[in-house]
Amino acid sequence: MKKLLNDPANLVAESLRGVERAHPELRVDHENRIVYRADAPVSGKVGLLSGGGSGHEPAHAGFVGPGMLDAVCAGEVFTSPVPDQMTEATKKIDGGAGVLHLVWNYTGDVMNFDMAAELAAAETDTEVQAVVMNDDVAVEDSLFTAGRRGTGAAIAVEKIVGAAAEQGRSLSELADLARRVNDSSRSMGMALTSCTVPAKGSPTFDLPDDEIEIGIGIHGEPGRRRVPLASAHDIAEMLVDPILADRDFTGGEGVFVFVNGMGATPNLELYLMYNEIAALLDKAGIVPVRTLVGPYVTSLDMAGCLVSITRFDDEMLRLWDAPVATSGLRWGM
Amino acid sequence: MKKLLNDPANLVAESLRGVERAHPELRVDHENRIVYRADAPVSGKVGLLSGGGSGHEPAHAGFVGPGMLDAVCAGEVFTSPVPDQMTEATKKIDGGAGVLHLVWNYTGDVMNFDMAAELAAAETDTEVQAVVMNDDVAVEDSLFTAGRRGTGAAIAVEKIVGAAAEQGRSLSELADLARRVNDSSRSMGMALTSCTVPAKGSPTFDLPDDEIEIGIGIHGEPGRRRVPLASAHDIAEMLVDPILADRDFTGGEGVFVFVNGMGATPNLELYLMYNEIAALLDKAGIVPVRTLVGPYVTSLDMAGCLVSITRFDDEMLRLWDAPVATSGLRWGM
Repeated sequence: MKKLLNDPANLVAESLRGVERAHPELRVDHENRIVYRADAPVSGKVGLLSGGGSGHEPAHAGFVGPGMLDAVCAGEVFTSPVPDQMTEATKKIDGGAGVLHLVWNYTGDVMNFDMAAELAAAETDTEVQAVVMNDDVAVEDSLFTAGRRGTGAAIAVEKIVGAAAEQGRSLSELADLARRVNDSSRSMGMALTSCTVPAKGSPTFDLPDDEIEIGIGIHGEPGRRRVPLASAHDIAEMLVDPILADRDFTGGEGVFVFVNGMGATPNLELYLMYNEIAALLDKAGIVPVRTLVGPYVTSLDMAGCLVSITRFDDEMLRLWDAPVATSGLRWGM
Repeated sequence: MKKLLNDPANLVAESLRGVERAHPELRVDHENRIVYRADAPVSGKVGLLSGGGSGHEPAHAGFVGPGMLDAVCAGEVFTSPVPDQMTEATKKIDGGAGVLHLVWNYTGDVMNFDMAAELAAAETDTEVQAVVMNDDVAVEDSLFTAGRRGTGAAIAVEKIVGAAAEQGRSLSELADLARRVNDSSRSMGMALTSCTVPAKGSPTFDLPDDEIEIGIGIHGEPGRRRVPLASAHDIAEMLVDPILADRDFTGGEGVFVFVNGMGATPNLELYLMYNEIAALLDKAGIVPVRTLVGPYVTSLDMAGCLVSITRFDDEMLRLWDAPVATSGLRWGM
């Protein structure tokens, strides 16, 4: 294993020190591994909390800031944070209007966010609602999940709900909006290679030189099937067809297309993939109105990509375009 | 070789199709492989042109847009564009105030930009000036370079000069500013692993499992020396010490610190590196005022990082903070 680190056991802790030093507009609670806005809690605004295992950077800390999340909790690599972290974070960002938990659908995360919501309510009367994001069409259950996994849709959900929260909307309205964006999103990913978790020191899974895994999860958990290495054109079909089979993406204001790099795949290849994906959407009468191409929800050093499509209505489009100032997504501020 | 592509020979061409489809605010001249602002030429504004070999994404096309570059030329992977491309691009962005070529110091690029400037002047009377960026302290000459290589400083140069160009400054003023930012910048990189150029299909160089290369170039060209795999703490010293030995970074408004991922290195590790780098700067009495951490000048799928430091004066700081709207850097618009 060749990585930039000191002791694998301290990787997440030391990386959070770097986040704190690099971003004076953020605060880090090192004991609880919470990254939060320096101005939290914002009085009268619903606080937005997400988070999960580390190793998906810029998700999750890269999406903390005005116009997006108020805080995230960081777990160890590919491991859910614990309820105490989430409870503490919930308190930190409670500006009196309640806190919305935006939960990526993995069994540990869902259970821990549930417990944290109960603890926060019991300790401080903070009103908490939770929305679980489950956009991955690849598998119904998985090594880490009951139901569908949460993957690329989180970018659209967190950005759009983040913008709506800045407008002062209520907790229930924001939870409804989060559910609507999640319901409008479908994703599917693939891997060319495995990632290597530092604490383990060797690849998570073996994938022969002439095979790829279709429907892979963002922790390297198995997907739908292994197939021989194929052209970008054929891979695009293997990802887009199941997405389009699962939901109607025509109409509305068009779609948001997110081509996510899993970590080690160059943007040169991701844009080539976008070219293939856009051609397929065109054939299906689906109109991309916004795009995002690059590594935003990674799986350490895995090579591969994930395609996520969200059908935008006019409100989602307007909120997507609203200002945001995080280290991962930033415009208009 | 496992990559997302159809035919390696068409990788750059197909990727540029994807850039065009994903970014309606850009235009692509596919014959000449030029990516340019849809509103080019901007009347009365000096046009800024850069570019180089492909494989460094988001450099170079990711930095085209208001507040940064007007156009870039794309060569094949790790190969300079040819003079005809540059001449055509120069014409496209000439709004009557001249064109500034921002050239990364590699022998082919420098020679071709020189010829392009002569051709453009002969064909259209366009006034062209060129500034060569050469910030890499690792080696004096290299496989690709006479003198020092151009690497991370380009981000600061292109962003700052881009902002100044939007203010309507003259060609000579902008060339002076570009030289000042370049002179204020020093960089050094390292590799954990080689990259694989698609047309070749195998790693560019062999690096044993227990060795790293210090002072590597962004095409995998050799650096200063190979050393045993070391801790992030020690690697940070091996990169920062030569940078600080080469220039005084104290005073002014403080420094801009850029921790660049070479392609396959996760942000989790880059932030850990930033923590080490910031501690070293602190000890040297150097104050970071702006940071950028992530993969911005990549070397395909190489694992490793590059550190670049620029001493900011008050004008550079103000221009760094000015609005920019490209796919690679975006804020305030």
